[in-house]
Amino acid sequence: MKKSIITFQNYPSIRSFSAIAGKKESDGNMGKYFDRIEEDPYFGQKNWEQAETEMQSQTLNLALQKGAMTMQDIDCITAGDLINQCTVSTFAARGTDVPFLGMYGACSTMAETLLTSGILIDGGYCQNVAAVTSSHFSTAERQFRFPLSYGGQRTPTAQWTCTASGAVVVSAEKGFPRLEGGCIGRICDLGVKDATNMGAAMSPAAADTIFRYLTESRTPPEHYDAIVTGDLGNIGSPLLIELLQKQGIDISAVHQDCGSMMFDENQQDTHAGGSGCGCSASILCAYFLPKLQDGTMKRILFCATGALLSAMSAQQGETIPAICHLVEISGSMA
Amino acid sequence: MKKSIITFQNYPSIRSFSAIAGKKESDGNMGKYFDRIEEDPYFGQKNWEQAETEMQSQTLNLALQKGAMTMQDIDCITAGDLINQCTVSTFAARGTDVPFLGMYGACSTMAETLLTSGILIDGGYCQNVAAVTSSHFSTAERQFRFPLSYGGQRTPTAQWTCTASGAVVVSAEKGFPRLEGGCIGRICDLGVKDATNMGAAMSPAAADTIFRYLTESRTPPEHYDAIVTGDLGNIGSPLLIELLQKQGIDISAVHQDCGSMMFDENQQDTHAGGSGCGCSASILCAYFLPKLQDGTMKRILFCATGALLSAMSAQQGETIPAICHLVEISGSMA
Repeated sequence: MKKSIITFQNYPSIRSFSAIAGKKESDGNMGKYFDRIEEDPYFGQKNWEQAETEMQSQTLNLALQKGAMTMQDIDCITAGDLINQCTVSTFAARGTDVPFLGMYGACSTMAETLLTSGILIDGGYCQNVAAVTSSHFSTAERQFRFPLSYGGQRTPTAQWTCTASGAVVVSAEKGFPRLEGGCIGRICDLGVKDATNMGAAMSPAAADTIFRYLTESRTPPEHYDAIVTGDLGNIGSPLLIELLQKQGIDISAVHQDCGSMMFDENQQDTHAGGSGCGCSASILCAYFLPKLQDGTMKRILFCATGALLSAMSAQQGETIPAICHLVEISGSMA
Repeated sequence: MKKSIITFQNYPSIRSFSAIAGKKESDGNMGKYFDRIEEDPYFGQKNWEQAETEMQSQTLNLALQKGAMTMQDIDCITAGDLINQCTVSTFAARGTDVPFLGMYGACSTMAETLLTSGILIDGGYCQNVAAVTSSHFSTAERQFRFPLSYGGQRTPTAQWTCTASGAVVVSAEKGFPRLEGGCIGRICDLGVKDATNMGAAMSPAAADTIFRYLTESRTPPEHYDAIVTGDLGNIGSPLLIELLQKQGIDISAVHQDCGSMMFDENQQDTHAGGSGCGCSASILCAYFLPKLQDGTMKRILFCATGALLSAMSAQQGETIPAICHLVEISGSMA
């Protein structure tokens, strides 16, 4: 079999990270872990898109601040989001004077930017690279689904786009947590057409990437404290477990899904869980990276998943292709 | 000054390339150079988005065919386009079973994917990587501007989105043309708000990147047979020359712009020239790479430019940020 995973030789470190989330997210299971909560969904701006831009910008600045860095220490920003033409990320980066690589991987963006940042560091092209992404309930809802004021009913399989952002500074400095390697996702499309059931559409992509990584790295699932998927949610997660079991791999003991972790199922009406680029990005930065830093966890696979549809592709009757990028991250105790 | 350019150590080669364009483009100055012309704007499909997807897919397959390769030889596809959520590129790549990195750089995409492909090869992460992009007049027109049937009048500064696609296979095999290095663009926004004058919006980004590259590499403009910009067109090109002249650099003797090259100004009603990801991508693959291959040219800078706006950002009164990524390509006679 052709090698399709990436193994870093120089172990890019995670020098700093931060997560900012909105009010509803702060009321969920992850509420106490975020660096900052913003009660105002407009983030002090005039429209939703500006709000998300402001959130993403604040998150990167907070990561710099936490790492005692300034924008001048950053050689490149890798970023993306869900909004048409990725304007949230480009608008957040304008004015920074930092070289910028725009990426599109839908909700897989945090893993795509993190892996790309790792490559830029590991290959010796940069000293410090920021990987950033975000999502906002209101920008996503009105772009992909309904006008906000319409108040459309949500199906039981629907997920709730999180208002959240995560930023990671990957560095050539030695340290922990660090990136061990990763896997660039392949596009999988098993024919799901229901745009309100993205967990089902994304689970085959997650299975494909995780299978390739575990097989090629010759590591069993138990080698990791957690195999973290992006936002498969309550519908997609059991499908992932089942798909991998059919291939002889049982990740059920170590699997955690950010979409399922975000909200309180009993108290919050979010149906199949959270979604959006910011969902897995903020939980990585708020929950998992601190655990790798303090030694509570030794090693995780961060596997963010993205559904590569658009409002138009859904209207044109297309099925939903999906992708899952993976990054292996280890802590100081690994 | 902090180093901000990339110099490749292992010289990724360009193993194969191809360009496909539409009927109107075939009637322009570049018509005789394209590998294939498609007279049917639908490319045999049912809607414009499927047409562009089919074009991009055909272009990559043609590049593989020209290089006596199959999809199995490709370790990664890097691709992007102008359409919301980059569905053209992801839909073109589904079914290929090849790892995929989605990128968004608007019309700078060919340089962004080419540079990223170079990094993946130069750093030893892959053996063969495809860089692909496309644009289609009808998908762009109805998404960014007006319904096609409306037949809106175009301003004198407007550019014509090209129906065209380019694909390059970058390889670890030694050979020519080869990638010498490049420069990741920074986002520049001098406050242009007119979405029908993207040349003006993009010229500062081109000036910034070209200035950084020439200064840091300590090469004069005459070191290159051509400094090729993406799609500044007839309005943006003189602005670029002027901006660089103010910084003491005169590129006028070697500057060529794909937007200005594409159409016949006297015979075709395209106002300020061509634009779209496919404009510079197809001209790179149809015109410049063959000249580097046969020794007519020794060395070029390929500087694709992108305007990072969306229909919504324009409606919300935002100014237009822009970016320009650069790749230095040399031929066998360099």
